[in-house]
Amino acid sequence: MGYMHLGYEPRNDVVCEFYFEHASGVSAKIAAENIAAESSIGTWVDVPGTKKQLGAKVFSIKNNIVKIAYPLDLFEPGNVPQLLSSVAGNVFGMKILKNLRLNDISFPKKYIRSFKGPNIGLNDLRKMTGIKKRPLIGTIYKPKLGLSPGEMEKLAYKVYSNGIDYTKDDENLGSMRFNKFEDRVIKVLNVVDEIKSEQGRQVVYAANITASTDEMLRRAEFVKDHGGKCIMIDILTAGWSGLQTIRNQNFKMIIHAHRASHGAFTHNPKHGISMKVIAKLSRLVGVTGLHTGAVVGKMKGDEREIVEIDNFLRSEWYGLKKTIPIASGGVYPGLIPKIIKILGNDIIINCGGGLWGHSMGAEAGAKAMRQAVDATMEGISLKEYAKDHGELKLAIKQWGC
Amino acid sequence: MGYMHLGYEPRNDVVCEFYFEHASGVSAKIAAENIAAESSIGTWVDVPGTKKQLGAKVFSIKNNIVKIAYPLDLFEPGNVPQLLSSVAGNVFGMKILKNLRLNDISFPKKYIRSFKGPNIGLNDLRKMTGIKKRPLIGTIYKPKLGLSPGEMEKLAYKVYSNGIDYTKDDENLGSMRFNKFEDRVIKVLNVVDEIKSEQGRQVVYAANITASTDEMLRRAEFVKDHGGKCIMIDILTAGWSGLQTIRNQNFKMIIHAHRASHGAFTHNPKHGISMKVIAKLSRLVGVTGLHTGAVVGKMKGDEREIVEIDNFLRSEWYGLKKTIPIASGGVYPGLIPKIIKILGNDIIINCGGGLWGHSMGAEAGAKAMRQAVDATMEGISLKEYAKDHGELKLAIKQWGC
Repeated sequence: MGYMHLGYEPRNDVVCEFYFEHASGVSAKIAAENIAAESSIGTWVDVPGTKKQLGAKVFSIKNNIVKIAYPLDLFEPGNVPQLLSSVAGNVFGMKILKNLRLNDISFPKKYIRSFKGPNIGLNDLRKMTGIKKRPLIGTIYKPKLGLSPGEMEKLAYKVYSNGIDYTKDDENLGSMRFNKFEDRVIKVLNVVDEIKSEQGRQVVYAANITASTDEMLRRAEFVKDHGGKCIMIDILTAGWSGLQTIRNQNFKMIIHAHRASHGAFTHNPKHGISMKVIAKLSRLVGVTGLHTGAVVGKMKGDEREIVEIDNFLRSEWYGLKKTIPIASGGVYPGLIPKIIKILGNDIIINCGGGLWGHSMGAEAGAKAMRQAVDATMEGISLKEYAKDHGELKLAIKQWGC
Repeated sequence: MGYMHLGYEPRNDVVCEFYFEHASGVSAKIAAENIAAESSIGTWVDVPGTKKQLGAKVFSIKNNIVKIAYPLDLFEPGNVPQLLSSVAGNVFGMKILKNLRLNDISFPKKYIRSFKGPNIGLNDLRKMTGIKKRPLIGTIYKPKLGLSPGEMEKLAYKVYSNGIDYTKDDENLGSMRFNKFEDRVIKVLNVVDEIKSEQGRQVVYAANITASTDEMLRRAEFVKDHGGKCIMIDILTAGWSGLQTIRNQNFKMIIHAHRASHGAFTHNPKHGISMKVIAKLSRLVGVTGLHTGAVVGKMKGDEREIVEIDNFLRSEWYGLKKTIPIASGGVYPGLIPKIIKILGNDIIINCGGGLWGHSMGAEAGAKAMRQAVDATMEGISLKEYAKDHGELKLAIKQWGC
């Protein structure tokens, strides 16, 4: 077929690393070449007019891992859907493969520079909130669905005034019969203003705008018009076209990226697309914060992989601003020291049920979370700190540490 | 937890059928309840303020299949991303599950009516093209990438003038350095006009607009302004937010939906989201045509499932217009009788390599495809028909039948 270039050294190529298992009756080499063909310029049969210089190059095959280099001309600058339709498109459905997983992807500078990256990055978020070193402490309004805007307003005040920096809608909270988007934005942002005048703290509310792109634009404008600093998008169920359009508006607002549905294709270590790839694309497009897992808690997530992803999001990357990792899913105060130890300080820690479910209520839940973070930053064990911090003490009693 | 309602009979609910495997140490019942909780109003711990009437109801568990009914108030009308963030969101990443697959989903009339369905449906496409009974015969320009607009123009004339009804860009053809979107649209649409004046046939060109939503809107307007009848979107890599926005513009153009990347989450029968669910959402939003598989050919696809999906797309569904299934992937003339026998006449048959790779060139490839369809419609075997149709004869010699 002509896609085999073992030993080729990629320079200005997009490079993909795939795990693959070929079907019986096909050699690994043929399978690898077919992946390279289908994801670049070829198909199952040779056709006239093929420009071989555009073909992808298989440059390494080893232990079910194939590495493929793609000439940059195969990709439209600044177009994530086109990239994915190439390297993560038809290849997942080919009969000659039993399994295929896009493990990793890397880009040359020129391609990266065709994207904007975050408009508001990790450092901007720290400046905005005045929180210099410690993790930001966030919460998700719970129950996930059912609260009215008025109820959210009351809850917002309870948690912000007791030390929470950041609140967010849950991933499935749209504009509901019982909770219209505009109503809750107005009410929660009023509380944000209240906290600012009472405590001088700039707290953040991530309003979930997930919808059709036109509606997301309308909702983002609405948040902006009401002084909001942050919009939240379920980036995978909304999709890359919508996310790119929102980013490209330069709203100067935090884009909080929720990854709901990622497990549908990241779960199987032998098939699909890795979370690392999603993380790279998210920073490329330009989200401020991305859910990457809490290591501990109710959601799956391999510790080594999460650490690697978090480190990538916070590393130098051709001048793109940094994305802050969001640790979320089944978090409660007792888990904080471990989360910070593993993931570092440059994170947002989200605690939902582990705050609202506190036996003494939301105010105590907020205080307990803040105490757990403060203790950890001061190098004091939670049990020690709990001796004169009753809320933390109760949280530990309730859920352990 | 309170999500178990065995024997409940759904009425105005959204109903999901999941395949699931629970982790060891958890009962099937607990796992099922956790799926219902996480995809509706709950989390890992009870929180105050929960409105149980909004909770999802597990009404059947049997052989690793759980059926869950969701009150309609959990969903924002006309918002696919919000739906998926609920029923196909966090649930795929829960530690208490080994595997989870959303097999099927059904909607009450009220929810369906909150979407528009196709603007141009199957019947409109038949009226537009004047093709009353037989399948439409389409081709994908090949090689996938590398052709210039001028080369596409020449190829377009070759295939349209020899009986092809419908041509399309490949899924990874964006606006490339060697092939700008606007240039190829102008050139190929000129050929479409030429064919109309020469042969009186309205042929179709599906121009791939896949990009950020704002860019897709611009490209769709461009196609419309130049008299085009069809836009193509890679609906899964672009995402639902973008697709919904394009559909809601009422362009009165065919929306050709390519499903590149679906295999990342449809491939594993035990985990992810089924193609059937994608097909239902696609018709709901309103695509004119959807790639569903060719049964035969280079791509995976279970025959029974494809037939079921194709039948759904063409069935009565609360008054929504019909979506035409597109059979594509490794098709060549010899496969036509089988494809039509299995999938019926109301399809678009796409043939890429099996046309362009014809030993006598593209004109012969186009004729051979048309001959294969004509023979099948007349009830004549391809071998018989090939006796006085040389192009078909050669295709059969090349690839079999």
